[in-house]
Amino acid sequence: MTVPLPNQAERAAILGVHARGKTLAPDVDWDTVARATPGFSGADLANLVNEAAINAVRAGGPIIDAQDLDDARDRLLLGRRESTNALLPEERHSVAIHESGHALMAALCEHADPVAKVTILPSGPALGATEQLPEAERHLYSESYLTDLLTVRLGGRAAELVVFGEGSTGAADDLAGATQIAARMVREFGLSPALGPVGYGSGAPRYLGGESTEETLHRPYAEQTQRIVDEETARLARNAEKRAVALLSEHRKALDALAELLTTRETVDGSVVLDVLQQQQQRPDGHHPAAAGKPTPSP
Amino acid sequence: MTVPLPNQAERAAILGVHARGKTLAPDVDWDTVARATPGFSGADLANLVNEAAINAVRAGGPIIDAQDLDDARDRLLLGRRESTNALLPEERHSVAIHESGHALMAALCEHADPVAKVTILPSGPALGATEQLPEAERHLYSESYLTDLLTVRLGGRAAELVVFGEGSTGAADDLAGATQIAARMVREFGLSPALGPVGYGSGAPRYLGGESTEETLHRPYAEQTQRIVDEETARLARNAEKRAVALLSEHRKALDALAELLTTRETVDGSVVLDVLQQQQQRPDGHHPAAAGKPTPSP
Amino acid sequence: MTVPLPNQAERAAILGVHARGKTLAPDVDWDTVARATPGFSGADLANLVNEAAINAVRAGGPIIDAQDLDDARDRLLLGRRESTNALLPEERHSVAIHESGHALMAALCEHADPVAKVTILPSGPALGATEQLPEAERHLYSESYLTDLLTVRLGGRAAELVVFGEGSTGAADDLAGATQIAARMVREFGLSPALGPVGYGSGAPRYLGGESTEETLHRPYAEQTQRIVDEETARLARNAEKRAVALLSEHRKALDALAELLTTRETVDGSVVLDVLQQQQQRPDGHHPAAAGKPTPSP
Amino acid sequence: MTVPLPNQAERAAILGVHARGKTLAPDVDWDTVARATPGFSGADLANLVNEAAINAVRAGGPIIDAQDLDDARDRLLLGRRESTNALLPEERHSVAIHESGHALMAALCEHADPVAKVTILPSGPALGATEQLPEAERHLYSESYLTDLLTVRLGGRAAELVVFGEGSTGAADDLAGATQIAARMVREFGLSPALGPVGYGSGAPRYLGGESTEETLHRPYAEQTQRIVDEETARLARNAEKRAVALLSEHRKALDALAELLTTRETVDGSVVLDVLQQQQQRPDGHHPAAAGKPTPSP
Amino acid sequence: MTVPLPNQAERAAILGVHARGKTLAPDVDWDTVARATPGFSGADLANLVNEAAINAVRAGGPIIDAQDLDDARDRLLLGRRESTNALLPEERHSVAIHESGHALMAALCEHADPVAKVTILPSGPALGATEQLPEAERHLYSESYLTDLLTVRLGGRAAELVVFGEGSTGAADDLAGATQIAARMVREFGLSPALGPVGYGSGAPRYLGGESTEETLHRPYAEQTQRIVDEETARLARNAEKRAVALLSEHRKALDALAELLTTRETVDGSVVLDVLQQQQQRPDGHHPAAAGKPTPSP
Amino acid sequence: MTVPLPNQAERAAILGVHARGKTLAPDVDWDTVARATPGFSGADLANLVNEAAINAVRAGGPIIDAQDLDDARDRLLLGRRESTNALLPEERHSVAIHESGHALMAALCEHADPVAKVTILPSGPALGATEQLPEAERHLYSESYLTDLLTVRLGGRAAELVVFGEGSTGAADDLAGATQIAARMVREFGLSPALGPVGYGSGAPRYLGGESTEETLHRPYAEQTQRIVDEETARLARNAEKRAVALLSEHRKALDALAELLTTRETVDGSVVLDVLQQQQQRPDGHHPAAAGKPTPSP
Repeated sequence: MTVPLPNQAERAAILGVHARGKTLAPDVDWDTVARATPGFSGADLANLVNEAAINAVRAGGPIIDAQDLDDARDRLLLGRRESTNALLPEERHSVAIHESGHALMAALCEHADPVAKVTILPSGPALGATEQLPEAERHLYSESYLTDLLTVRLGGRAAELVVFGEGSTGAADDLAGATQIAARMVREFGLSPALGPVGYGSGAPRYLGGESTEETLHRPYAEQTQRIVDEETARLARNAEKRAVALLSEHRKALDALAELLTTRETVDGSVVLDVLQQQQQRPDGHHPAAAGKPTPSP
Repeated sequence: MTVPLPNQAERAAILGVHARGKTLAPDVDWDTVARATPGFSGADLANLVNEAAINAVRAGGPIIDAQDLDDARDRLLLGRRESTNALLPEERHSVAIHESGHALMAALCEHADPVAKVTILPSGPALGATEQLPEAERHLYSESYLTDLLTVRLGGRAAELVVFGEGSTGAADDLAGATQIAARMVREFGLSPALGPVGYGSGAPRYLGGESTEETLHRPYAEQTQRIVDEETARLARNAEKRAVALLSEHRKALDALAELLTTRETVDGSVVLDVLQQQQQRPDGHHPAAAGKPTPSP
Repeated sequence: MTVPLPNQAERAAILGVHARGKTLAPDVDWDTVARATPGFSGADLANLVNEAAINAVRAGGPIIDAQDLDDARDRLLLGRRESTNALLPEERHSVAIHESGHALMAALCEHADPVAKVTILPSGPALGATEQLPEAERHLYSESYLTDLLTVRLGGRAAELVVFGEGSTGAADDLAGATQIAARMVREFGLSPALGPVGYGSGAPRYLGGESTEETLHRPYAEQTQRIVDEETARLARNAEKRAVALLSEHRKALDALAELLTTRETVDGSVVLDVLQQQQQRPDGHHPAAAGKPTPSP
Repeated sequence: MTVPLPNQAERAAILGVHARGKTLAPDVDWDTVARATPGFSGADLANLVNEAAINAVRAGGPIIDAQDLDDARDRLLLGRRESTNALLPEERHSVAIHESGHALMAALCEHADPVAKVTILPSGPALGATEQLPEAERHLYSESYLTDLLTVRLGGRAAELVVFGEGSTGAADDLAGATQIAARMVREFGLSPALGPVGYGSGAPRYLGGESTEETLHRPYAEQTQRIVDEETARLARNAEKRAVALLSEHRKALDALAELLTTRETVDGSVVLDVLQQQQQRPDGHHPAAAGKPTPSP
Repeated sequence: MTVPLPNQAERAAILGVHARGKTLAPDVDWDTVARATPGFSGADLANLVNEAAINAVRAGGPIIDAQDLDDARDRLLLGRRESTNALLPEERHSVAIHESGHALMAALCEHADPVAKVTILPSGPALGATEQLPEAERHLYSESYLTDLLTVRLGGRAAELVVFGEGSTGAADDLAGATQIAARMVREFGLSPALGPVGYGSGAPRYLGGESTEETLHRPYAEQTQRIVDEETARLARNAEKRAVALLSEHRKALDALAELLTTRETVDGSVVLDVLQQQQQRPDGHHPAAAGKPTPSP
Repeated sequence: MTVPLPNQAERAAILGVHARGKTLAPDVDWDTVARATPGFSGADLANLVNEAAINAVRAGGPIIDAQDLDDARDRLLLGRRESTNALLPEERHSVAIHESGHALMAALCEHADPVAKVTILPSGPALGATEQLPEAERHLYSESYLTDLLTVRLGGRAAELVVFGEGSTGAADDLAGATQIAARMVREFGLSPALGPVGYGSGAPRYLGGESTEETLHRPYAEQTQRIVDEETARLARNAEKRAVALLSEHRKALDALAELLTTRETVDGSVVLDVLQQQQQRPDGHHPAAAGKPTPSP
């Protein structure tokens, strides 16, 4: 956290610097690009310009236009994804439901970072992805933020439970990640009443072979204390899953609609997620997104 | 999963490529071969053609015919098996019952991959084998699929229990394999209500000697949590065994008939398993395979 | 503890020695500087003079004045802090509340060392700091002193709980530090009735690779004994947090006032903390600082 | 199990091959020798002929007769045993009772391999030995077989308990061996209802220093699960001991008679064990060996 | 214990040997010095003479007198102590109370070795010291002796509890030492009825890297057995502390008087401790030291 | 056990061989020496003759007489012991009582090996010794023998309890040795009903660094099973101590008489122990040694 991320004005300036000596189309507006890249570091912005230049060359010329920059931003956000027919149709449906679960939780949880992109294109072992971008660099995370983080992380699996009535192996990484977050809430951040206001760092030995082996061979606490950590970790994860299942059941129509959109378009912007949510809630079934708490962010 | 398996059309094309420069008998039809080799990779298909060519040479000439390709496919599916009289007659019977148990479970469980071959010829330490082939490459496995996988895996032992009233050492590998599957369902895939929606990866240290030893000396969870993993693992295994015993008791005639067929022919195709099952169920005892749930696959 | 810290007279003399050959402004009075640097070692005092000389050169000349010395003292007390707009406004507020909690606990707990400086300027990963200076070097710490130490350490988190109703990741270091203090009270200093008058040193292996491995592989006591250590550690931490929450609720106005001051001035002296406390207590709401027990120290 | 043992006809042929170029006495009949060497491998049979040739040379000439072959077979079955007066008379009696216990259990348990030889001559640290030879090579072991194996293994100690009313250090190897068999029944072969149909291989780390240390530092299951393994192991051992004590109490006269024979002759054939058992049961006390279940094998 | 310590006559002779060639003042009497140095080894006595010679040279000449020898003995008994004003006045008081607690316990416990010197001068990290000298070398320690040893060791902390009502960090070394003594009483010397007449040596692995690793990785007993060791260790320590608190409460006046003397004189002889005790008991409050059991030793 | 010990006749012959070329006094009778050296190996007997020759040379000439041989035998039995006045009188008494306890238990327990020598002369760290010699080499140890072994081992401590009412540090080695014997009875020899007829070898890892690490990192059984081992070990030790205390209380006069003899003579033969026992029992208090069970051995 020692080197802060650039703010929007700084991003526009940095983009200008990296674009020096490159030919730009008239539709390129650095302020627009800067507004669409919250949380990008200086290095990210340099990469963005380089990728856009490569895109331009591939498209036949040296002139970078707005579309080149937009495509480059997507590539940086989601990684290199492959459009492939490797997945079975029911698997594509399953991935679409899973990613829609993540995306809707990010949109509905008050303290969650907004969704930037959702995709069902695979990248390496990952069958899909939902990318969130913070509105600004954070240095402190409140209990509310972490609770929402857990809910978003378990939103994919919750969607599978709501739609298919059973889980699958596709949620393994989400479960591992949510478990690590919840365990740190309990062990390092004092957020479990059962364990109390204590902190045990990572709860594991750090440096074997170093000068001091004081902490290398034992946990700094008892087995039974670790069991309390496990129980509290599971309790936080269960609560997050229960909340995600409840919210997704309530917004089932949005879930199905978003999954359908994803199956067709493969990749959608965060704004599309919000649109789907609003459309479903303006319908006569009477639910309004405001009731779920989170004001629509203006990206 | 990064390199997808070829589909049927692709397999036919790949076979054609590898057969270039080789003389083929008129009865060779790549589409037929491709239909019989679901789940084969490009390398598997190259091997298939090479093995068939060797078979042809052994049979006296350079012309590959349909039988050469069929034999080569069997060899690739089941490994090199030896026709031997090393086993005692009662051991042959026991192996035939055991493999029939696996094969019938694969045929009767709705989400199980279909049986390709069953054999009671030994190969190395394995006294017999039941090979299943997925209808297509999968990337996601549902809880239902994994539950059926367990049932098939414990089907051999269940058949021994049904027919002989006791187990034997022949099920050791099945038990170890089923235990690993069930343990991952509990620990990595969140499929145990008792443990909850948490994920602990392989539950074991990863990199000893690497930079970080954070996870090398402790399990990431408590002993008592491991005990819950063990209890849930055993519960899943018990349920699968109970289900297999019930299904095999219900289909006892098919079990005996298939075992008898295996004792005579030593190796049979998956279609034979389905035939045996249908014949037994068309008899006046009134059971129909459809009642057991699984529609006959069309291989 | 073998080399004692210099007392005030000695500090004045040491400062004089290190200032030999340097030009001093008429407003420099070594006794005043010595009074403001309790707990400084000889090396600290040498640093102080050097830093002041550098300050003077930067300000344009070789003459060190009282302000140069004052600035140098602040730098040594708090480290090099950066005035930065990296934090979000709500984060600055959160840090101000957190540090005010530490500072007020140090002011209100009878045996706590007095506050020297409080800042919300970040330094490396630390977002703020509250520095205390002992009135004299100590060689023995009573149970009362250690209990107050815990309360001050958990005062930042307690302030977050009082003001925001929830904790945050910002208290992680405080929790880890308080846990270590409380664990030593229990395990090494015999201050837990539940464990009794026993002492287990650091409770961890000391010398791996040395001549004797007697203590390297086992804790010198049982798992269940470690559990008692954990329970007693948590009990001490809970009591300290409860006390801090009660005191800060009682002095809520001083807490808000101090946090507001910090948000404006970024860094304040310990005397300002005492002023805020006195002002709030002279108001008609009737609370007096004397009631909280600690006589105002005269720095 | 990859190379099967030769059957009787094959053994006769193999013996003939290895005897080529050697002079045989007219009383040598390969079929008789083959019948007496079930379970011998090809290498064992080669050794047998070589040992017999050495015996012949020692006896003064190059002609191998039936006695040379018989002696060579004994040496291969029992190892090199020393006729020594090192043991005290009461120790010889104790060893004779112990070995008679093993031999009678092998004769009385239905699924046990038949006794080939019993001796009270010491060989290295072993004070006596009871050798069993399977009637044919086995590849599968049923629960019944393993239960009888345990009973034979604990038969020596059971005989000590029946005759002397107390155990001795002489059963240490039997106890260790029986414990390993019983533990594998529980942990690897799914033969304990309390643990269920799970399999944990050897339950211990395999490859330290290899690429993966996944299983090196933890058992793959919990302490409490190991306790269930221990309890079930002890239960199987207790049942086997109880059964052996009951059978030997019932056949106490045969036990004493066989021990007396052994004290005199030091080494006896398995057929002698069966003779002793039949003689004791034809007496007026009315017990018949058939009642104990095992049909007399025809070696 | 293989080389026994010299007795008084031998000590006088050894001193004479080491003093050969040195000039002695007429007031030097080797028998007097020998009587004051019980428990000194031959090497200790050689050091004593050397130190006295150095003292003499410092005092201006080569003649060693009785005072030089006395000072040298003190230095050897207590180490090099510094008269320093580093401690705060309340810390000096606390140390005086603490050391008086040790000294009085040594004087009042029947089997404790008599006090030689008490000091509140610090030496390295130790803020004070109470040195006891055995009246003769011991080779066997009875349960009574060990119980008194514990009481003396915890006497310093007990005095803090009696006078200040709370403990401090100053007792950490005493607690660690008492814990080690008590644990050996339980684990090695069979002095705990709860553990019984068993002995587990140091209860810890001995030789890592040696030929046998039999004991390196496991304690030779169960966790629950270690818990019994911990409980019994704590029970012995609690009893000793309770006894010390009771005795010091009874002799509170002597405690305060001795502490006051120590504050003034900084170092006192063991005889002074006995004097203080007798003076307080001859007063009208009616307690007599004989009632506390220990006859005044005649040093 | 592979090389048996020589019997009496063989010992006489071996002694003769080693004495060849040496001059013997007329009073040397090899049969007498052989009768007094049961359990000596060939190497022991060679040592005996060499030691006697050295004794003879020291006594002034090359002629070995009966006394030289007798002294040499004592040295070999008891090690090199020092007559020293290092021990305090009460320590000598304590050692005499302790060794008398061992010696009387060896004399009174039916299956114990007879006493050869008892001494209160120290040798290295051991303050005394009681040496037993088996009447013949044993290869099997019954439960009765091991139970008596435990009783003899704890007889020294039992004597301290009977005479002094408390234990001492002098029994530490006895406790450790008895604990190891009892633990093997439970863990290896199946002599604990609570653990059952199982055997776990030494219960500790064997070969670290070898090919297989199967047993290196885990005990082969559960913690709770080790706790049963500990409980049963303690139960056997408690029973042995209780029995020793009862027997020594009954023979208290013999205990005191033997201790007094030892204090005077320092070393006595086993026959003296039997004499003391008989003398005390012929007195009017009516106890007879036969009642305690053990027939007087004729050495």
